[in-house]
Amino acid sequence: MLEKIKKENDIKKIKKEELPLLALEIRRFLLEKLSQTGGHLASNLGVVELTMAMHRTFSLPEDKIIWDVGHQSYTHKILTGRKDGFDQLRKYGGMSGFPKRKESDCDAFDTGHSSTSISAGLGYVYARDLKQEKYHVISVFGDGSLTGGMAYEALNNAASLRTNFIMVLNDNHMSISENVGGMSKYLAKLRTADIYTGLKKQVVRTLHKVPVVGKPMIRNIRKTKSSIKQLLVPGMFFEDMGITYLGPVAGHDIEMLCEAFREAAKVEGPVLLHVLTKKGKGYPPAEQYPDRFHGIGPFQVSTGLSRDKKEKETYTDVFGKTLTKLSKEDERIVAITAAMAGGTGLEPFQKQFPNRCFDVGIAEGHGVTFAAGLAAGGLRPVFAVYSSFLQRGYDQIIHDVALQKLPVVFAIDRAGIVGSDGETHQGIFDLSYLGSIPNMTILAPKSGRELSDMLEYAMKLDGPSAIRYPRGTAYEMPEEDCQEIRYGKSEIIAWESQIAIISYGHLFEEAVTVRRLLKEKGYSCTLVNGRFAKPLDTDMLEEVCKEHRLVVSMEENVQRGGFGESIIAYYAGRGKAVRVLPLALPDDYVEHGSIGVLRKEMGLDAQTMADRIETAYQEQEKL
Amino acid sequence: MLEKIKKENDIKKIKKEELPLLALEIRRFLLEKLSQTGGHLASNLGVVELTMAMHRTFSLPEDKIIWDVGHQSYTHKILTGRKDGFDQLRKYGGMSGFPKRKESDCDAFDTGHSSTSISAGLGYVYARDLKQEKYHVISVFGDGSLTGGMAYEALNNAASLRTNFIMVLNDNHMSISENVGGMSKYLAKLRTADIYTGLKKQVVRTLHKVPVVGKPMIRNIRKTKSSIKQLLVPGMFFEDMGITYLGPVAGHDIEMLCEAFREAAKVEGPVLLHVLTKKGKGYPPAEQYPDRFHGIGPFQVSTGLSRDKKEKETYTDVFGKTLTKLSKEDERIVAITAAMAGGTGLEPFQKQFPNRCFDVGIAEGHGVTFAAGLAAGGLRPVFAVYSSFLQRGYDQIIHDVALQKLPVVFAIDRAGIVGSDGETHQGIFDLSYLGSIPNMTILAPKSGRELSDMLEYAMKLDGPSAIRYPRGTAYEMPEEDCQEIRYGKSEIIAWESQIAIISYGHLFEEAVTVRRLLKEKGYSCTLVNGRFAKPLDTDMLEEVCKEHRLVVSMEENVQRGGFGESIIAYYAGRGKAVRVLPLALPDDYVEHGSIGVLRKEMGLDAQTMADRIETAYQEQEKL
Repeated sequence: MLEKIKKENDIKKIKKEELPLLALEIRRFLLEKLSQTGGHLASNLGVVELTMAMHRTFSLPEDKIIWDVGHQSYTHKILTGRKDGFDQLRKYGGMSGFPKRKESDCDAFDTGHSSTSISAGLGYVYARDLKQEKYHVISVFGDGSLTGGMAYEALNNAASLRTNFIMVLNDNHMSISENVGGMSKYLAKLRTADIYTGLKKQVVRTLHKVPVVGKPMIRNIRKTKSSIKQLLVPGMFFEDMGITYLGPVAGHDIEMLCEAFREAAKVEGPVLLHVLTKKGKGYPPAEQYPDRFHGIGPFQVSTGLSRDKKEKETYTDVFGKTLTKLSKEDERIVAITAAMAGGTGLEPFQKQFPNRCFDVGIAEGHGVTFAAGLAAGGLRPVFAVYSSFLQRGYDQIIHDVALQKLPVVFAIDRAGIVGSDGETHQGIFDLSYLGSIPNMTILAPKSGRELSDMLEYAMKLDGPSAIRYPRGTAYEMPEEDCQEIRYGKSEIIAWESQIAIISYGHLFEEAVTVRRLLKEKGYSCTLVNGRFAKPLDTDMLEEVCKEHRLVVSMEENVQRGGFGESIIAYYAGRGKAVRVLPLALPDDYVEHGSIGVLRKEMGLDAQTMADRIETAYQEQEKL
Repeated sequence: MLEKIKKENDIKKIKKEELPLLALEIRRFLLEKLSQTGGHLASNLGVVELTMAMHRTFSLPEDKIIWDVGHQSYTHKILTGRKDGFDQLRKYGGMSGFPKRKESDCDAFDTGHSSTSISAGLGYVYARDLKQEKYHVISVFGDGSLTGGMAYEALNNAASLRTNFIMVLNDNHMSISENVGGMSKYLAKLRTADIYTGLKKQVVRTLHKVPVVGKPMIRNIRKTKSSIKQLLVPGMFFEDMGITYLGPVAGHDIEMLCEAFREAAKVEGPVLLHVLTKKGKGYPPAEQYPDRFHGIGPFQVSTGLSRDKKEKETYTDVFGKTLTKLSKEDERIVAITAAMAGGTGLEPFQKQFPNRCFDVGIAEGHGVTFAAGLAAGGLRPVFAVYSSFLQRGYDQIIHDVALQKLPVVFAIDRAGIVGSDGETHQGIFDLSYLGSIPNMTILAPKSGRELSDMLEYAMKLDGPSAIRYPRGTAYEMPEEDCQEIRYGKSEIIAWESQIAIISYGHLFEEAVTVRRLLKEKGYSCTLVNGRFAKPLDTDMLEEVCKEHRLVVSMEENVQRGGFGESIIAYYAGRGKAVRVLPLALPDDYVEHGSIGVLRKEMGLDAQTMADRIETAYQEQEKL
């Protein structure tokens, strides 16, 4: 079957009765490929039939399918002629794990973060109507995405529409882990309503088809304060907002799905199609442990076990362990996660202190202000969050935390290059967006040990602070002597002359190598571990510029507004003509690939950095 | 009556029957004071009784009242002993127009932006419970705030609570202008439900008082698919999430409000108290035109007419006029506002092109991604938004607009110092937060005329762009010759030697004066209008550094990550020892006051800048 799918719309040529076989083949294909490359498995297994039904019902690329988050778009990629891309999935230069407009006309909108698809879809809808074009717009989002306020803002806005817009609620009861909160509770009630049947569909269809009588009748039904209404329209909240609710629909029944989509396409207005799916569907290990099979590395299909050797302790592990330890000693410590207790290493803490750990849903904005409230109430909150997701809470950091100087600790994981998730997930802006916020203290550790020290230190600060650390194995520095953390002070690792390297955060490991390479070439080289991006260690900077001809900064953040530029600005402000070479990421997005490859591509591997330093030093010598 | 209120809780000593008189006196006081100083009138007149009822029922500062947005906290300030502050309301060094923890113990949380109060309140609640303290937490938000997704994220989260948390929905059917969207429609239905009566209250009270029998009974009622449920609990959506709904309550009936608060305080869990109020209540002109009396300058009480002379044309006016003009020629142009059509100057456009103007509610995050969708669909969206509010859409700019290089124009009003609204509203971070985003083009005009040119220019760009301009009168440059806008090119106004001033945006007007002051002292001084903060005009920078001993940058943005630092970084990257003096705002929040006073305090008035430049130049001469 799969062989017959060479490009978009080819699925329409498949006989109806052969569709289940195609679904089976797609699942086998995904298992075979992902067990080799890794990727997002459980969510993709869950939407095989849903995707097939959409591709049967709609025409691509004319119709626009917008995937929320987007990591569940693998079947969509298969059905739009990108089967061959799976061998290089998420590898540098290979196919992205997310929808990309530059990859295919059939990818209507790039995604990566949660809860954006309704907004983007609504934009397409209004553009279509104003340009008097004819196509369907279908936004597909999970119930997890509905915990993000942006989805609700968009629903609120979409409710006023008078033309067709199909919103598919792919309800699998999960984000990465289980969903939380009131909306989840509400959806649970809808789930238990009678499954979408011909009867109800007929009623809705009939009513909508008779515009003169039908519309007032629908209005009457909506006004009826009786059980009839509930039977007809279980999704009353959506209905009351002005959105037609269809469902719930069994999400692995292709025929029923196709029917439901055809119905939905007829509604003159916004329609929410509630589809019930199962994460990991068809692969028992993933059905049983959908969170473990959310984003995975290579694994053995027969057992579901990972092929990767257990990694050494990661920064994330160190954070989780340290937080748990500190929390035993200080009852005021509480932790917040935006639906990422696993990814951020909070699970041990959550286990030990369930009532001190708050999963707020995919709701970073709320999470930040909630943390501010906890701090105002006398606690010591730690918000454990990925760098790129904290971007969603930027205003709240300025407005609710830093303005009131509240002691919230931002434990910023996945800072720097994160690898195969690519552009939307790289944590390369945090030093810039946090650096310009008054009252912030910004730390970054050189090693796992130092992360532990910094967390302990930050918990005692009177104001807001952020500690940024990367994905992956925590660096263990040989013979680390762990100088005490002091406010705004860097750590001198080795003091020589000529070149001074001030490394910020996890690039330290590379900086050690750079220094070795330079010394091998006969240069004398100081090495400083920056520790604080804010406030800067100005005493150190004064000393450094006296005794070195070239100052080099290193950070895994875009250069603009980052650590290096603040050093340059410091010297400029002092009227000092110090030559500073800022080694940082260029003013661009960083695509997917392994961290090692990307670092090299961006010129932040040890060899490239050593070469650049040598060149700059030689230029300086010539002056 | 008002004389008896010297501090918090004094209102409890007032006899019940005298409360309406006190309400009257408060309204008179507000009218008298605000007609002199200006401030937020309509919203404050609307919550006089609501505030009084809270202060009668709860004890401050132990109980925590959190005001969403916060400009409706004037009665609260009066009732907590700050009556005398009103003469200096919103003036530099005087009382803030918003709650401020540093101003009073009774201000539990600083606010300014919308939709934060539930998050902050929830933080307090969990802190209270973990610390085993006993106090009430009351978050008060308008129905406008409910169009912001953050409020919904917090509601979703609050639904899981098992202890008391009072959320007051102050429903006046308005943001600054009328509310939009599905939630507003839903609330409208609730508004028409039977007004909160003794009967229903009794039922809820009785049920909650009998914990063993009552709870299952409430659950049963909730499960009942019948009209009984609707009669008992009209706020079913909230109830279905797990939040007790009480209301609607008549919001100008103090006794009824006090009763409702006492009821609400007994609920063991989150409770939403739906209060119906009227914006501008008690002052006919404000009741009739609540939007005009939202934030106002001094006015005549008898007529309601402004005492300010009509200002000259503002940047906002120029934006609105130009957009309307351009939109006649280009049908693809559409505009977006986050509930601020008036403030952002979109009203003429909205009038002329109602179906091309989208009010998305107080939902900047959604607004940005919606704009991206419109652009992906082939339109040319302009998002007209205040600088400090666009902070809410920071991630969406990175993730949905700039990554896909979509041609969205951000028309950023209120950039720089905005004046009397103070810290939460100053637009002083946008150059920093936008500057580090790849693919962005950032413009700022020196004059009204140039804003018009820039908007026309930006509409033709292939990628995302931002134009920042300030509050207030548009500068009219004498004999402005309007050099054509060219990509990444600045405008040379006068070319001399010694000192080069590169002014960015609206500080140009000051820069002209600075140049005059310097020339009067005998300095030779070049003046450049920067135009582009991104990309920088590097050709100009190369020329400038050849022929000047001192380069001065000027911008009304924090220095960190701003225009000046990017110039400094450029020269550093070229290995050039150019002395750059960046004149910008310090790394701090800027409080309330008039723009003139604040600019002087921050060292950005012409005289201070001229002095600083002279000092720097003399230092440079000595080297």
